Parts: sequence; structure tokens; C-alpha cells
Amino acid sequence: MNDRAGDDSAPATEQPVRFPIDGGCFGCSPSNPNGLGLTFRRRGDVIVADYTFGERFHGAPGIVHGGIIAAALDEISCAAAVFVRDVPVVTGELTVRYRHPCPVETPLTLSARVAGEHSRYLIVEADVSQGDKRLAHSSGKFFLTSTPTAP
Amino acid sequence: MNDRAGDDSAPATEQPVRFPIDGGCFGCSPSNPNGLGLTFRRRGDVIVADYTFGERFHGAPGIVHGGIIAAALDEISCAAAVFVRDVPVVTGELTVRYRHPCPVETPLTLSARVAGEHSRYLIVEADVSQGDKRLAHSSGKFFLTSTPTAP
Repeated sequence: MNDRAGDDSAPATEQPVRFPIDGGCFGCSPSNPNGLGLTFRRRGDVIVADYTFGERFHGAPGIVHGGIIAAALDEISCAAAVFVRDVPVVTGELTVRYRHPCPVETPLTLSARVAGEHSRYLIVEADVSQGDKRLAHSSGKFFLTSTPTAP
Repeated sequence: MNDRAGDDSAPATEQPVRFPIDGGCFGCSPSNPNGLGLTFRRRGDVIVADYTFGERFHGAPGIVHGGIIAAALDEISCAAAVFVRDVPVVTGELTVRYRHPCPVETPLTLSARVAGEHSRYLIVEADVSQGDKRLAHSSGKFFLTSTPTAP
């Protein structure tokens, strides 16, 4: 079974996607100097992001803190719901599996796709990869909300 | 079933615990100005921390980013392994359930305890609470490692 979030039959074209309002979100705001500042692209039904975690985000020396990995996976999972399904969501549950340490100051790739749909929530899966090597994987329940969540 | 991490029959006495080396960890270092700077106390077999998440850690306006909640739960879970069981660990898997939004700039309580032990890993459960109200809960697999992880 291939459950890599970014392995869908993706067209060659990509386009940047951006939340319309900058509310200072830790995960994606360009104006929060303490945050991750993730920016996303849409490639078919997959949302992707290139990202290098700075040294300030380490846990053990040289390794990105596991919680920061969770933050990035949570953020890109929400982006998949918003930009692919066009629905605002809130995170209800997130499971992260840490397969290999994620090095700081190293170009990595994030990807996410909607993997399932229920009446009240979406299942979104996401990955952190270094080249072809998957370092961390998440699966989460993202509940539909009638209130748009300004990022 | 009562699975609240901090509900063990806790003695009244508490004592501060601190990692012996400050390696700049995002979760617990006093010298990482961008991090959480969590400090821990041991109360019986439970590790607790009082913490107020700053505005810079928000996702939706006024609400702590779900990934930052995961980071705090991951950090205090590792602390429970280190300070209660005296073993270094690395996070293998972490599941966070978000029950209620966690407000920023509001005093909250974190707690964690070792809930199970296997040959290769510990199960650690942790909570974020506001008074008696549990806002988020985590359960994770924390793998024993022979290499101490300087925080």
C-alpha cells in the first residue's frame, strides 16, 4: 500500500496558494517572526511545501523538535482541507509517527492530501520527506466548522 | 475510566526538576527565546507544569496552534520518562485529541505520567487543562534510547 501523501498522480503544473487573510498564525503567517512561515503550493489534489526548519526549532541537538514537526503537519493538513476541499476546519485529532529524525537547517518537503471524508470531518494525511525518504507521517481528523478560521 | 494524566493519588509535596544540560531545546530551554521555555515539577509520579502560551503561538485568533499544543504535550511526556523513570527517550508516535480550544495568554496546566511500559517503549499520557477542564489529551509511544538526548 502506498500511503505517501504526495504520491498521487499529480499533474506537472503547480500553483501557489495562500490564505486570504494574514492573522499572524504560528504555522503560516508571513508576519509572525516567531512562527514557521510555511507557504504552500497546490499540485493536483496535493498541497506541498518546501521548508527548512531553523536551528531555533530543535529538540535534541540538530534534530527538529517532534512537536514542531507536528505543528508543520497540522498546518499543511489544514491547508489541504481549505485549498483542495474549500472548507474551513479545526483539528480534532492528530497522530504523528516519527520514522527518522528530521534534521534542522536541511531542505525538506511537506505534503498533504485529503484521504477520507465523513459527515463531520475529513481525514487528512501528511508527510515530511527528505528527497525520497519519508521522515514523518501524520493522519488526522479535521472537523468541518461553519466559522472560517482566519490563519 | 479516569485517564487524566494528573489524577494519580499525588502527595502534597512537589519538587522542581530540570534537565542538567541546557542545549537550547524548543520545548524546555531557558535560553531559547523562541521556544516554550517549559519548566517542570514532579508530584509523585506525575510531572506538572504551569504555562501561559503567548500570543505569538496562536493559530486561529486567540487560540493556541494545535501543533504548539502537541509540542508542549510531547515535551512534558519526555520529561515524565526522564524524571520519573530515569530513562532517555525519543518520541516514536504521538496522538493528540483536541477537546476544546486552548486560549492564549491564559494560565493553563500541563501534566504527564507514564501509563504503560513495553520492552522497547513507554506509553506516556499527558493533558492540557484549564482548572478542572481538560482541553487536550495525548498518548504517545516513547522509545528507549541508549543515547541521552540533551534537551
